[in-house]
Amino acid sequence: MSTALTVNSYFNDQVKSIALENAEGTSTVGVMAVGEYEFGTSQREYMTVVSGALTVKLPAQTDWKSFAKGDTFIVEANQSFQVKVEETTAYLCRYE
Amino acid sequence: MSTALTVNSYFNDQVKSIALENAEGTSTVGVMAVGEYEFGTSQREYMTVVSGALTVKLPAQTDWKSFAKGDTFIVEANQSFQVKVEETTAYLCRYE
Repeated sequence: MSTALTVNSYFNDQVKSIALENAEGTSTVGVMAVGEYEFGTSQREYMTVVSGALTVKLPAQTDWKSFAKGDTFIVEANQSFQVKVEETTAYLCRYE
Repeated sequence: MSTALTVNSYFNDQVKSIALENAEGTSTVGVMAVGEYEFGTSQREYMTVVSGALTVKLPAQTDWKSFAKGDTFIVEANQSFQVKVEETTAYLCRYE
């Protein structure tokens, strides 16, 4: 087999991800460099911290919430959310 | 900050990874396409399945062992190990 693995790059290469499809569904695994980012969703996203930590302001929330390694947060489709990254962080984003 | 995130590619692009350094240490997060691979280590590696599954023959072992999402196996430095990938799989590899 020769499946090309797709790498995507965002925010001037400060966020990179690799796409995958398996029994769990469609996901990307990626890394965010230190910084602040705003992401938009087109599907429901299940974001899991794989290494590091994320501080997140979820849609329609005013408070920031911290997520450590192993934690998951969910963002509905067609929303935007803000992320502060204080150490380089790996994540798994599963789409639904 | 403008930290370049490094993407590496192995086995004719069937395995790709993104490097990161944070409080947990030095790691790569990556994806393996369906296939069979033999990896060599230069440091001790803690390999964790992030999504999917890996079937692994560890150094000096004759049996294959399956690792599911969330499972970790350890390979000492300067060893080689074989991996069978039956569905596209994301992993975290922490170096020590």
